[in-house]
Amino acid sequence: MQVSFTTDEIAAIVQPQQVRGATTESVRAIASLGAAAAGELSFLGNLKYKAEAATTRASVVLLPLDYDGQPQPNQLFFLVDNPSVALARLCSRIEQQLWPKPAPGVHPTAHVAPGARVAASATIGPLCVVEAEAVIGERSHLQAQVYVGRGAQIGDDCWLMPGVILAAECILRNRVRLQPGVVVGSDGFGYEFVAGRHEKIPQVGNVVIEDDVEIGANSTLDRARFSRTVVGEGTKIDNLVQVAHNVTIGRHVILCAQVGISGSATISDYAVLGGQAGIGGHITIGRAAKVGGQSAVTFNVEPGTYVNGSPAMAYMLGQRLEVLHRRLPELFKRVGDLENSPGKG
Amino acid sequence: MQVSFTTDEIAAIVQPQQVRGATTESVRAIASLGAAAAGELSFLGNLKYKAEAATTRASVVLLPLDYDGQPQPNQLFFLVDNPSVALARLCSRIEQQLWPKPAPGVHPTAHVAPGARVAASATIGPLCVVEAEAVIGERSHLQAQVYVGRGAQIGDDCWLMPGVILAAECILRNRVRLQPGVVVGSDGFGYEFVAGRHEKIPQVGNVVIEDDVEIGANSTLDRARFSRTVVGEGTKIDNLVQVAHNVTIGRHVILCAQVGISGSATISDYAVLGGQAGIGGHITIGRAAKVGGQSAVTFNVEPGTYVNGSPAMAYMLGQRLEVLHRRLPELFKRVGDLENSPGKG
Amino acid sequence: MQVSFTTDEIAAIVQPQQVRGATTESVRAIASLGAAAAGELSFLGNLKYKAEAATTRASVVLLPLDYDGQPQPNQLFFLVDNPSVALARLCSRIEQQLWPKPAPGVHPTAHVAPGARVAASATIGPLCVVEAEAVIGERSHLQAQVYVGRGAQIGDDCWLMPGVILAAECILRNRVRLQPGVVVGSDGFGYEFVAGRHEKIPQVGNVVIEDDVEIGANSTLDRARFSRTVVGEGTKIDNLVQVAHNVTIGRHVILCAQVGISGSATISDYAVLGGQAGIGGHITIGRAAKVGGQSAVTFNVEPGTYVNGSPAMAYMLGQRLEVLHRRLPELFKRVGDLENSPGKG
Repeated sequence: MQVSFTTDEIAAIVQPQQVRGATTESVRAIASLGAAAAGELSFLGNLKYKAEAATTRASVVLLPLDYDGQPQPNQLFFLVDNPSVALARLCSRIEQQLWPKPAPGVHPTAHVAPGARVAASATIGPLCVVEAEAVIGERSHLQAQVYVGRGAQIGDDCWLMPGVILAAECILRNRVRLQPGVVVGSDGFGYEFVAGRHEKIPQVGNVVIEDDVEIGANSTLDRARFSRTVVGEGTKIDNLVQVAHNVTIGRHVILCAQVGISGSATISDYAVLGGQAGIGGHITIGRAAKVGGQSAVTFNVEPGTYVNGSPAMAYMLGQRLEVLHRRLPELFKRVGDLENSPGKG
Repeated sequence: MQVSFTTDEIAAIVQPQQVRGATTESVRAIASLGAAAAGELSFLGNLKYKAEAATTRASVVLLPLDYDGQPQPNQLFFLVDNPSVALARLCSRIEQQLWPKPAPGVHPTAHVAPGARVAASATIGPLCVVEAEAVIGERSHLQAQVYVGRGAQIGDDCWLMPGVILAAECILRNRVRLQPGVVVGSDGFGYEFVAGRHEKIPQVGNVVIEDDVEIGANSTLDRARFSRTVVGEGTKIDNLVQVAHNVTIGRHVILCAQVGISGSATISDYAVLGGQAGIGGHITIGRAAKVGGQSAVTFNVEPGTYVNGSPAMAYMLGQRLEVLHRRLPELFKRVGDLENSPGKG
Repeated sequence: MQVSFTTDEIAAIVQPQQVRGATTESVRAIASLGAAAAGELSFLGNLKYKAEAATTRASVVLLPLDYDGQPQPNQLFFLVDNPSVALARLCSRIEQQLWPKPAPGVHPTAHVAPGARVAASATIGPLCVVEAEAVIGERSHLQAQVYVGRGAQIGDDCWLMPGVILAAECILRNRVRLQPGVVVGSDGFGYEFVAGRHEKIPQVGNVVIEDDVEIGANSTLDRARFSRTVVGEGTKIDNLVQVAHNVTIGRHVILCAQVGISGSATISDYAVLGGQAGIGGHITIGRAAKVGGQSAVTFNVEPGTYVNGSPAMAYMLGQRLEVLHRRLPELFKRVGDLENSPGKG
């Protein structure tokens, strides 16, 4: 990345409560404390790296308010409430510099069908397809090679990255961000077994994605059989995640990479599912429950609890059984000793 | 979805054997018994919801022949052999209304190379690419942004949804449906380790997909090393499934989401693999065998059997071991008691 | 595949050290020893098929130097150092025949933004998008519907297959091959939990892919938070693999299909990860270590060791525990017997 910020510009963004030292450098990159060089900015986001803050060669360092060290020569400390949040704010500015949204309008190579409604402030990039009766809201951005199906609706300030497919009738509310290759609205996996064949059950429902959802690259979300597959406000979904038909995902949920959620499951608000976890059909994961990575959940999970394992069980029970499992060689030996002890006969 | 059917139209589609009651409503949507409102159709597909059939507000209800209840005022009951199948037939009609296949022809933004043969009845949608010597059969539909490689062959009545990639020389027979983002014919993962480097083994075989196969969004099927990767007639594959090179999948198989099948494995007719299951290389899964979700299969599975677990084992054995595993704390205690019992010394 | 090689052409490619017999056939296909017919070439790559070499109907057979059998009438044996490598060399030639790289130049349907630099020897296929400031090196091939973001850099002799997405600022060195649908440079999955919401941490780093890397269909590699996600020279990645932000993958690593690697993990040179394995965040897998399929690794793995299981443990320990686990029914019985034995009371 090629960026450049003066220290004044950085101060304006991170709004430090206290300043120590000074530097003649401008900031051209961000790096970790240990890796940073002159002309770079670093930050103390995790106290276990505190020692590195004293020796970093970064020209500008974001530090927590209670940090008591002093800068080296030609080094500037900005003390802030939360260095991670301050850095995120700075990175957001970098993001806008690196990837400015193109001017509104429809690229000449895009195909927008008659009957589609595209807001004048929206940007439709090269080689996108927008089918009839689709609606694209204010300032939304279809980056390139995006497909928006017949009757699909996109709200305001959405960003659909290259290769995203939003199938017919599906709905994105506002500020939804879809990473490259996401598929929203593929058919649910439903068949009736009739006379030795799997006959397709047509899937004529849709998918509704609420405000501020982000979905990772190449993830897939199936349309409902006849109602709606729903992803609630503020939920974040990582790459290569599968969401089956008729699933309801609540608000502010986290689904890590390669999670799979079977049909008609419910994931409640604030739940967190670790990578590669699988949730069975019609299962409910309670509010703020946690599911460990690679777990297989085949029963309802109570709110606020933590389950783990394949098959999943309560986390503490699983940990205890795991310890005992590793002691099986010892147990076999103890039983053998008992069998051979004089008292036995 | 915006649809409208008169009750006469619905009767023509579901062909009821018996009719009870009447309604002045037309049908504008489908919903479950509990959720349905006036102007909607519902159905009793699972007897555990029988109580809801008596109180549903749906205007039209599909019920099994032996249902003995009576409709409410302004409510119409259609009694049919199989309400789920009847509903599927209705949804199929809805699907055609919602997503009518565009008229035959090649969209002006598509690129069809000289030497490709496209049936006059086929539809090539916007921004598709069809390479030289490819063949597209009667009434087949490439929806948008589809890629068909050199010498690939597509039979009749296939539907390739947006973003599908069918690589060179690969073959789809008839009525194959590929959901968005499917990749057919990526290179198999084959290397020789020579002098400290993984040297690529070129993969010059192809993939053959037989009649009536459906493949889910973003699934990937690799071409064979030099022969064929095969998916048999009527098989249904869910989203994000990986099929490696030289795999042979039989007829009417079910592969749930995120399944992974390693190279040269054979999945026999009517087998069912649960979500996220993994099958080792050169393994054979017997006819109508079942593999549980998240299982890891490293041995051949006999026809008609059910295996589960990672590593997989016979289902009943796995269930028994799981029960005993959870009793390990008790077993350790019992052994401790024995060791401390007076009889021991 | 439709190919044709004379026996002289094949001899020139595989350079046999010894020749036995002769055939009037030319070679039109490759097949396994058991399946081959006249006009086809086969090879003995694995000694367990040695018996089949004596009875194969292939017209040309590649055999190891120490093979002592004689050809049948109208059959030609080529004895070579390594039949698998010889076959790979032949298949490479077939690959070039089947899929010749199109002539250099930019296809008229591609969109190359002003300010992008495309080598005169590069091929930009139909409906590709190359954004401003991107660089495409000598002889590199963007096959079709590929996206190359702003400021991305592609070295020499790379091959990006249909539907590949290389996001802004990401870098491919030389001879990198990306299978269809690969996403390089999606945002890392990073959020701060602030006031009940997951606030996005912008991901402004990039991804760097070194020389001779190959990545499988629909795999996803996330850009770093502010530094680099790296894939080292010669590493091979299979389909549907997830590589999170800030991961460092060494040289000549093998990642099988559906592997998931969490943020900031390090996979050292020559490591091999089996299909569907998951690696936790900030974990280091040592040089030439092996991780079994479907394993879940939550601790650092020493160089050269082999771990397996979910949770993972040393392979030999896991095998031993698995054997004892299956003997739990017996152990419960033995403990019951002890409890009931006369010596107990």
